[in-house]
Amino acid sequence: MEIETPPSGGSHRALARLFSFFLLDLVFVWGERERGGMAKESSSVPCTPLLKDELDIVIPTIRNLDFLEMWRPFFQPYHLIIVQDGDPSKTIKVPEGFDYELYNRNDINRILGPKAACISFKDSACRCFGYMVSKKKYIYTIDDDCFVAKDPTGKEINALEQHIKNLLSPATPHFFNTLYDPYREGADFVRGYPFSLREGARTAVSHGLWLNIPDYDAPTQLVKPRERNTRYVDAVLTIPKGTLFPMCGMNLAFDRELIGPAMYFGLMGDGQPIGRYDDMWAGWCTKVICDHLGLGIKTGLPYIWHSKASNPFVNLKKEYKGIFWQEELIPFFQSAVLSKECTTVQKCYIELSKQVREKLGKIDPYFTKLADAMVTWIEAWDDLNPPTVAAEVPNGPAKGK
Amino acid sequence: MEIETPPSGGSHRALARLFSFFLLDLVFVWGERERGGMAKESSSVPCTPLLKDELDIVIPTIRNLDFLEMWRPFFQPYHLIIVQDGDPSKTIKVPEGFDYELYNRNDINRILGPKAACISFKDSACRCFGYMVSKKKYIYTIDDDCFVAKDPTGKEINALEQHIKNLLSPATPHFFNTLYDPYREGADFVRGYPFSLREGARTAVSHGLWLNIPDYDAPTQLVKPRERNTRYVDAVLTIPKGTLFPMCGMNLAFDRELIGPAMYFGLMGDGQPIGRYDDMWAGWCTKVICDHLGLGIKTGLPYIWHSKASNPFVNLKKEYKGIFWQEELIPFFQSAVLSKECTTVQKCYIELSKQVREKLGKIDPYFTKLADAMVTWIEAWDDLNPPTVAAEVPNGPAKGK
Repeated sequence: MEIETPPSGGSHRALARLFSFFLLDLVFVWGERERGGMAKESSSVPCTPLLKDELDIVIPTIRNLDFLEMWRPFFQPYHLIIVQDGDPSKTIKVPEGFDYELYNRNDINRILGPKAACISFKDSACRCFGYMVSKKKYIYTIDDDCFVAKDPTGKEINALEQHIKNLLSPATPHFFNTLYDPYREGADFVRGYPFSLREGARTAVSHGLWLNIPDYDAPTQLVKPRERNTRYVDAVLTIPKGTLFPMCGMNLAFDRELIGPAMYFGLMGDGQPIGRYDDMWAGWCTKVICDHLGLGIKTGLPYIWHSKASNPFVNLKKEYKGIFWQEELIPFFQSAVLSKECTTVQKCYIELSKQVREKLGKIDPYFTKLADAMVTWIEAWDDLNPPTVAAEVPNGPAKGK
Repeated sequence: MEIETPPSGGSHRALARLFSFFLLDLVFVWGERERGGMAKESSSVPCTPLLKDELDIVIPTIRNLDFLEMWRPFFQPYHLIIVQDGDPSKTIKVPEGFDYELYNRNDINRILGPKAACISFKDSACRCFGYMVSKKKYIYTIDDDCFVAKDPTGKEINALEQHIKNLLSPATPHFFNTLYDPYREGADFVRGYPFSLREGARTAVSHGLWLNIPDYDAPTQLVKPRERNTRYVDAVLTIPKGTLFPMCGMNLAFDRELIGPAMYFGLMGDGQPIGRYDDMWAGWCTKVICDHLGLGIKTGLPYIWHSKASNPFVNLKKEYKGIFWQEELIPFFQSAVLSKECTTVQKCYIELSKQVREKLGKIDPYFTKLADAMVTWIEAWDDLNPPTVAAEVPNGPAKGK
């Protein structure tokens, strides 16, 4: 830090000039990186769709997938993994021209054998089976009651393209940038943002939002039956390290190689005492693991148009235990610490399952069953995705935790 | 938690109904509170301007305050505290019709005596003197190169009114709400947001943003001389507990009773080795203290129009030590812990000053001088604002820290 002491001759100006060149040099490197990022983002109609062969779209459903017609311009180039929930004898119709594979409960049982017990039945939590059978680096998952939204200029939003931009640019979990995503065109890090943190962290998850029907719990649905989300907030931001958030599975993308094994949607639906906490559970586990491994999670754009509010009375029945339990789950996740030995997502997840068993098992026997299922999930994941050296997160655990 | 165990008769439906009434009751209380909040916010032209007799506008300046003409419709009902920087013999013209008091360096020296040494000279950091002499509950501070911005519909933004809304509604520092400010009309807490946290925390600070010239540091100004902020992000959000942010003093409001003594803008400008870190310093200290006391800080709306980029070469000279030092300051503030005995902002600030002396004094003698000035600042604050019982933050320190 010798450069901090002004030369005895008091030549502040020379020092400032020297220092400014040093800084310019540094900043040009950042600028280049940024311009690279912008080049990637510049064309909204790329010749080949972004990540065409590296991304699967996972859709859980119980009905014909007519909703895909509206998504055709954006989804058709990609491969779909459809996870059919409920009665496997029912035929799900997929519009022509889409490239897909479809799994029903019989397929899940056949592929996983006894380990199929970790995949929920009669609940959209079954979607995580799709994450497991995918062979791609990235996953986008969307509900079948979500349609293409429009931005304030009336233009249809290519949600998938925005998710891909979010995943391919870094996140900023270690310090808050008041102008939101600093890697976006026309934005940057503001004054006072430490230079050493401007490289950012790798982005593991992109959480998109919903216009029209907001993702409310049953009590809020009951109290505000007519509330609609009409506010388009033109921002993407990183959820800071150490902060939990409610992750909704309706419009969600993630880097399967970086965080896939943490995206287990738990035991919900048929035979379970709880529903509608599948994505929340995945989100809390994922956030704790991302914080530990130094990975980032973004939320904000893109919006989809959520067409249909689910029945609040049915939802209340599914949720009511979760509403109580959640009050103990949040402090549990807020204080969860993973050991330094947890250098892969799998190791993190197994350690988390032990803590779930030990600390949450007291609340209800359900959590012991869930802890077992978490272990089974990882075993099944590793069966279908034999671990490689690449599974180690290159950065290793985040410093300082 | 007996209610969690279903009755042996298996009467789930009865239990759910009972529980739903309980929830509805709870939620109606929240609803009422919210509707109260909305009523407050509903009229954009209130008969009496909001907090007319409870808020001072603090403006540091070296020039005639012509910029106030544009703000007349919004600021004229309020009292202004003008802190004249630099040559005290110069006369600052204030447009007619404004109610103001003006302090120059001679006034500061006369009022504070030797303690005036803690107030910066030839730097807008001198604005914090205005916070000290105010007798009001709330402060809004704005730079004299900031003008009225327009929202995307072309309507002029009443920045002060939005700040007041931000300050009068709770903050949510303990859990992230993906639909941003849950207390805003048309928004709420999303599914998965713990019910016990929906009461929120008291809001201590409202940090507003800037259209046109963004608040960039000198290196970024040099690299991107033509970058303008044109993106209007229609959101207010709480900076989560445990996360630091770069607080800019250009467009800032706070609850002086709740957090005033932490809003010290440090030693900058004439005779000091550093500039342009005044607001940053205040922001880091304030954030650590708000986190400790369970108070919230919001950022986002309102925007002002920032007209004039300061000279990046001059700025670089002011900033270059800060750019280095900041790399050590951030880990310092990220790991700062205040003891349980710190139940007032003053006690927190004195404890923080000791940690500054002990841990940052090694970096440069400047920080020992700054630690002294922090103590002097609190002494001067208490001279002008004799402590009362009300100075204790009612909530006490935040739980879990």
